[in-house]
Amino acid sequence: MVKWVYTFGGGTAEGGIALKELLGSKGAGLAEMSALGLPVPPGFTISTAIGQRYLANGRDFPAELAAEVQAAVEGIGRITGRRFGDANDPLLVSVRSGAAVSMPGMMDTVLNLGLNDQTVEGLARASGDRRFAFDSYRRFMQMYGDVVLGVDQSVFEERLEDFKLAKGVGFDEELSADDWQAICDLFKGLVLEELEIAFPQSPEEQLWGAIRGVIASWNNPRAAVYRRINGISPDAGTAVTVQAMVFGNLGATSATGVAFTRHPSTGEKVLWGEFLPNAQGEDVVAGTRTPQDLTEAARRETGSDLPSLEAAMPETFAEFREVCERLERHHRDVLDLEFTVERGRLWMLQARPAKRTAHAALKTAVDMVHEGLIPKAEAVMRIEPRSLDQLLHPTIDPDAAGDLFARGLPASPGAASGSVVFSSDEAELARAQGRKVILVRVETSPEDVHGMHAARGILTTRGGMTSHAAVVARGMGKPCVSGAGTIRVDLQAGTMTAGGRTVRRGDMITIDGGTGQVLVGAVPLREPKLSGDFAEIMQWADEIRRLKIRTNVDTPADARAARSFGAEGIGLCRTEHMFFDARRIAVVREMILAETPAERADALTRLLPMQKADFEALFEIMNGLPVTIRLLDPPLHEFLPRGDAEIEELATIMKISPARIRARTQALAEANPMLGHRGVRLAISFPEIVEMQVRAMLEAALEVGDRLGQAVELEIMVPLVATKAELDLIYARIRESEAQVKKLHGRAPHFMLGTMIELPRAALAAGELARSAAFFSFGTNDLTQTTFGISRDDAATFLNTYLQMGLLPSDPFATLDRDGVGALIRIAVERGRATRPDLQLGVCGEHGGDPASIHFFAESGFDYVSCSPFRVPVARLAAAQAEIEAQRRGESAA
Amino acid sequence: MVKWVYTFGGGTAEGGIALKELLGSKGAGLAEMSALGLPVPPGFTISTAIGQRYLANGRDFPAELAAEVQAAVEGIGRITGRRFGDANDPLLVSVRSGAAVSMPGMMDTVLNLGLNDQTVEGLARASGDRRFAFDSYRRFMQMYGDVVLGVDQSVFEERLEDFKLAKGVGFDEELSADDWQAICDLFKGLVLEELEIAFPQSPEEQLWGAIRGVIASWNNPRAAVYRRINGISPDAGTAVTVQAMVFGNLGATSATGVAFTRHPSTGEKVLWGEFLPNAQGEDVVAGTRTPQDLTEAARRETGSDLPSLEAAMPETFAEFREVCERLERHHRDVLDLEFTVERGRLWMLQARPAKRTAHAALKTAVDMVHEGLIPKAEAVMRIEPRSLDQLLHPTIDPDAAGDLFARGLPASPGAASGSVVFSSDEAELARAQGRKVILVRVETSPEDVHGMHAARGILTTRGGMTSHAAVVARGMGKPCVSGAGTIRVDLQAGTMTAGGRTVRRGDMITIDGGTGQVLVGAVPLREPKLSGDFAEIMQWADEIRRLKIRTNVDTPADARAARSFGAEGIGLCRTEHMFFDARRIAVVREMILAETPAERADALTRLLPMQKADFEALFEIMNGLPVTIRLLDPPLHEFLPRGDAEIEELATIMKISPARIRARTQALAEANPMLGHRGVRLAISFPEIVEMQVRAMLEAALEVGDRLGQAVELEIMVPLVATKAELDLIYARIRESEAQVKKLHGRAPHFMLGTMIELPRAALAAGELARSAAFFSFGTNDLTQTTFGISRDDAATFLNTYLQMGLLPSDPFATLDRDGVGALIRIAVERGRATRPDLQLGVCGEHGGDPASIHFFAESGFDYVSCSPFRVPVARLAAAQAEIEAQRRGESAA
Repeated sequence: MVKWVYTFGGGTAEGGIALKELLGSKGAGLAEMSALGLPVPPGFTISTAIGQRYLANGRDFPAELAAEVQAAVEGIGRITGRRFGDANDPLLVSVRSGAAVSMPGMMDTVLNLGLNDQTVEGLARASGDRRFAFDSYRRFMQMYGDVVLGVDQSVFEERLEDFKLAKGVGFDEELSADDWQAICDLFKGLVLEELEIAFPQSPEEQLWGAIRGVIASWNNPRAAVYRRINGISPDAGTAVTVQAMVFGNLGATSATGVAFTRHPSTGEKVLWGEFLPNAQGEDVVAGTRTPQDLTEAARRETGSDLPSLEAAMPETFAEFREVCERLERHHRDVLDLEFTVERGRLWMLQARPAKRTAHAALKTAVDMVHEGLIPKAEAVMRIEPRSLDQLLHPTIDPDAAGDLFARGLPASPGAASGSVVFSSDEAELARAQGRKVILVRVETSPEDVHGMHAARGILTTRGGMTSHAAVVARGMGKPCVSGAGTIRVDLQAGTMTAGGRTVRRGDMITIDGGTGQVLVGAVPLREPKLSGDFAEIMQWADEIRRLKIRTNVDTPADARAARSFGAEGIGLCRTEHMFFDARRIAVVREMILAETPAERADALTRLLPMQKADFEALFEIMNGLPVTIRLLDPPLHEFLPRGDAEIEELATIMKISPARIRARTQALAEANPMLGHRGVRLAISFPEIVEMQVRAMLEAALEVGDRLGQAVELEIMVPLVATKAELDLIYARIRESEAQVKKLHGRAPHFMLGTMIELPRAALAAGELARSAAFFSFGTNDLTQTTFGISRDDAATFLNTYLQMGLLPSDPFATLDRDGVGALIRIAVERGRATRPDLQLGVCGEHGGDPASIHFFAESGFDYVSCSPFRVPVARLAAAQAEIEAQRRGESAA
Repeated sequence: MVKWVYTFGGGTAEGGIALKELLGSKGAGLAEMSALGLPVPPGFTISTAIGQRYLANGRDFPAELAAEVQAAVEGIGRITGRRFGDANDPLLVSVRSGAAVSMPGMMDTVLNLGLNDQTVEGLARASGDRRFAFDSYRRFMQMYGDVVLGVDQSVFEERLEDFKLAKGVGFDEELSADDWQAICDLFKGLVLEELEIAFPQSPEEQLWGAIRGVIASWNNPRAAVYRRINGISPDAGTAVTVQAMVFGNLGATSATGVAFTRHPSTGEKVLWGEFLPNAQGEDVVAGTRTPQDLTEAARRETGSDLPSLEAAMPETFAEFREVCERLERHHRDVLDLEFTVERGRLWMLQARPAKRTAHAALKTAVDMVHEGLIPKAEAVMRIEPRSLDQLLHPTIDPDAAGDLFARGLPASPGAASGSVVFSSDEAELARAQGRKVILVRVETSPEDVHGMHAARGILTTRGGMTSHAAVVARGMGKPCVSGAGTIRVDLQAGTMTAGGRTVRRGDMITIDGGTGQVLVGAVPLREPKLSGDFAEIMQWADEIRRLKIRTNVDTPADARAARSFGAEGIGLCRTEHMFFDARRIAVVREMILAETPAERADALTRLLPMQKADFEALFEIMNGLPVTIRLLDPPLHEFLPRGDAEIEELATIMKISPARIRARTQALAEANPMLGHRGVRLAISFPEIVEMQVRAMLEAALEVGDRLGQAVELEIMVPLVATKAELDLIYARIRESEAQVKKLHGRAPHFMLGTMIELPRAALAAGELARSAAFFSFGTNDLTQTTFGISRDDAATFLNTYLQMGLLPSDPFATLDRDGVGALIRIAVERGRATRPDLQLGVCGEHGGDPASIHFFAESGFDYVSCSPFRVPVARLAAAQAEIEAQRRGESAA
């Protein structure tokens, strides 16, 4: 026979956390504590199987359930010495939902069940507090009316307000026992009026009503939306836990509180928490009374006048401390506990893994390894990779008061303060004058890179998580808030406005790229500290992971930063970023505006030593680690000047007419530059650029190889490839450049030839491409753009709507879309490796730094991911976690 | 033992056209004629297997080949009574290449082989023409020198020119027999000088040299490029045909000519052709002498003074006519024949299917069915679907002299003359004044649609075959030349220039959208005549094909045209085109500029009756055939005014400030509109637009259904879908509108819900989408753009380079890319039908009107293709051909 009901309490339990799927996380946690012999109010859990059946089978219960529930209720009665409906000392219970995956606040709860016109008098007598009894009764009626009878909460609240108005009373506290009794009568009348039924008086009827109501709340709209967003199956259903009520508000010997087994903010190994005497759980949360410290140590630290639990109830506190220690040892994790003291007796109401800061997570995980509580792999699993951002960047001091101006997307982590400038030239000038500025733009373009370098942080009003501003800022490790759509910038007035407030050029603001906040004024920041714990856990992660972590960098400074964060090579060097340097952009423009191959060759000859020097610096820093260089990618119009002043200046330098520059700019303009004349298409149209770039790479590799006494690991890749014919043509040209270098220097360095996979066609043709390419580097930004047909520069206008409506589980530019883009990548991996089993597979899109995406790449057999320098530690940790999970699934070869 | 050499001549042959793969098309054709007992100069063919071996195996021949060739040469000798090297009457042969797939002019040929210092004298004696003999000898040396010895043609030509200069002679005709003899000596000296060898005198050595040279010419660069472009395997190799020479230039009883078994221009059943007495084949081609008619009937028609072959050589003519009739009956096709008469004796040199005009192809195919020569299916296969364009549109009179101004892409077929205007408003004004104009634009946008309607034809200087101008023009059935890149438009001056010439506003030009020509002046046009033959063959095609043909139309006029061309429904109605109508655009703009849902609702209420009227008209014309309507697709900024005047005007009408319009336009601007806020994304952001459109469709369907007494077959589809969640949301809204209509009218019409598949993600998620969608309509334009990452608006700058370099076999926007986009479509079809076996599959991109693509869709199990009205007959024919081919492969279920 199937078992539907699982009891707990009185020092035993049927089941525990192992039965989480069946009992829900709440029910399982209570059973676990009870089985440990801890003081848990007795109760029972109706399994999720009933929840599923009930909703699937026309809201019907199996025949045998009634008897099981009745026996379990009687069991509670035996332990508590109280009975349902006892007019002297009634048994009261709570009825709560509890799914296997926690869905906080999404489903319904009924408290104080068992009260009726008779038992309320019994409760008054037993508690000696008539006001408490009738207040409890009216609360029960309100919850039951809403959850079970379908009478909206607001209707009850209105009646209560009317009553208070008539009495001339402002707060609930001012109402007497008689008042609450009168209100109970009003509520009974209300139910009769609305539903033409009497409020149910039978505790059994109340219980079954509450069980049905709680199960049905699985399908309420907010729960359904929550499940869709969080990928929880709509068929999982909820368990129902029925538990004896305990009250912390029965006088001075009663109390209620919350505690953490270690400090959730610092990770220190101290019991930490708060309590309120003579109070209910909701009073702690409501914050209307000042909570008191649990321990004397904490009280001394906060300098509070109010007694600690340790001082006020020393025996209860001693018992509680022992319970905490036992639970932490048992769960081998920091726990978040809820407890109630009813007339001197301790009751444990909840125990779950504690939410903690990144610092605390790190410290507790490392400490627990040293304490022998958990193995290293478990410590690695305990750290949320994204939380490392908090450890690597300055953050806003959580104790400081902030004055919120607007919110945008958390595009690049870290916080920064500075005075507002609205152009990149202003930013550069300000830095020259030693001022700290925040660059505010509607959106940025490659022309703004110098201003972004000069600024402390970047704020844009358009563009998403992968807009130009976001990508470049992350690359620079600079804070950025992007797409703050409520801000209107008025360049002429030199102001920005949001929510009716105006910030002027020169005013101080603070941005937090980790949260997306924009604050008025200079808010105090907290500098990051990379503790020994951080290094230790990173080392453990490195011992475990199989995926290599490379970095996307274009400058020596970034390359050095990346190595200090543990990068194992460069996965993407975007040569075009080198072209924007102030000293070279003029030569680049000459090259573009050249009207003859000879003119172009002349400009390229001058660029050659500059590019060579760039590559030399990167090769030296990487010191024998692989360096993947991508040929020129962006459309040429990105390099041309836009403003009239800049055009005039360039015309003077080049001794040509501004009209010619304008004509060329117009000729190069494109309707959809993302899908235009760029990538390999440029390399095909302008072979002389390829020749220059390859020569610079090869000569730099030779020289640095000699200097280091170690060969440079050069990998050259071609962007935006769609067909093998394109690849073969460019490879032939690269081989020609190699022959030229050989002729000139008597030798050429070894290098690998690969391709970007960033177009759906390339993924589909991977089997063909792998005949020519020795490695694939997936450019998942562009691949996501083309697979979805979404321009990341324009996505802000509709992608937010999509996320809010739950049409997408997450931003596909932040976390890889497994079902679509991922399916395409799997096709490419399969076809590519079928042609060339040792094909090297890497990813150099933004997803290379995203933990969820890293799991996908690890599962799909990638060799490495490459991400921006500040993401490298995140990626190292995520890669280790992916490996641990694979081992747990028994999938890994290790 | 493998057979390498196949002989023909003397009324027999080893092999015939069945052995085309082995003998090449030329060798096989000669063998076929010889086997029929027709007079063919004897010879033999060395099979393609030797060509393949030779190039693969280090240029070596199998040992037994020498003996086979020697025997075959002796065989020629036996038939002709001449011997290689005979000093009195030498055997001379031609050595020609001949691949299985004809590669005209790509490989090399050697004529007059067998001549040396002795045999040239024998030829002089035997022919009685010493000048002829030495001219033949020097021609042989020139060809042999080039093909076999590797001495460039130009070196020989230089020597010849020097000689003529020294003699003071201008033309070859003025040189005497002695002159040619002297030149032969010069050429021998030249070879000795250049190569330090004597010109080979042994005919055997000459023969083997020529065989090797001809085989090797398979790999010359122009042949390699031709193969890559035409998809011919580089391993196929060429056969070599060695054949006895015959000469048409041995006096008055000799002649040479070409003939067609029916008239290649009209298709009339008359023998038609030209000949020259005492001439060689190249003289006919060179056009320096006036050719004479073959028949007396033709001579009378042309009014020529020169005698016909029928009159000049009545016996030879009679023999030739009989040969022609026999060959046509044998091949059951119109043939193009080459013949030579050597001293009264007829020799047949080539017989191949004749190239013919579309009119001729149609007439001969239909006639041959009526004559019982071929079955209907064969007649259907004989028509090149693209050639129907010639029959459906006016064309430039081929007899008229044209003055070419520039060339562009043949974007929409047909020719038109008119005076030049440079703006759409001008075009409209001109039409109002009764003038015919050609609209010239750099590129067109939806704002130009009224101007395109007003113009006779459209010329753009940017954009490809699928640019806005091209797509809309094809939809309207209007001639269009797009991407005429050499033309520079100067709007201020009101001129356009190309190649140093200038055309002014108001000047007459003629464009031919079938060839891409732009001509100065009004050139006479020929109007199309849709003969009974056309209707007859279309009916046969309809009897055969299984694929349905629908049409892409937005207006009643186009819908009527499409039905007259045989469309079986509407596969794509782009509702946005209706929005550009001059009377509504103001309301559309109000809707877009609305700042509150109420304002927007007001504008939509006014649009509702207009949309309803649009749909009613289309439903009535389609009279029960399916009509697929797409929800609003393009980004909203496409509807807003751009010019200052237009903005001011709109501001006045709407009583708002121009600044507000500009601000909104700026807010809606996008970096990559193709990948922006459009398609289903609009439907999600602006549900009220969907509601209006669906209500208009459903109410129109109800009313027209009542009027016709027959239900309207309505299919509603959602554009730019990427996920099932999007589709489900919109379907839910459509169902809400349906419920609204039901409430209002007591009923709602039946309709199908489907989706466009135009993003790679949609193709990959097809299995999911098919759970909600009852049909897929593949938008192959956008699917090609996103799969390749190529914007069709910007492709002109590099796609031409790709095609010229052979990097792509064809423009993927014209002919579907089978390997990439096609692979994705196959995935979608497979996954979609796995979920829903009766899923309806159609295509509504430009490819729906392209014959090669139609074959792909037919093979992939599509139900229909949809194309612009003027493409419908092309599609009907191509669909029938696809079915016939499938049946021949044994693949079709029919």
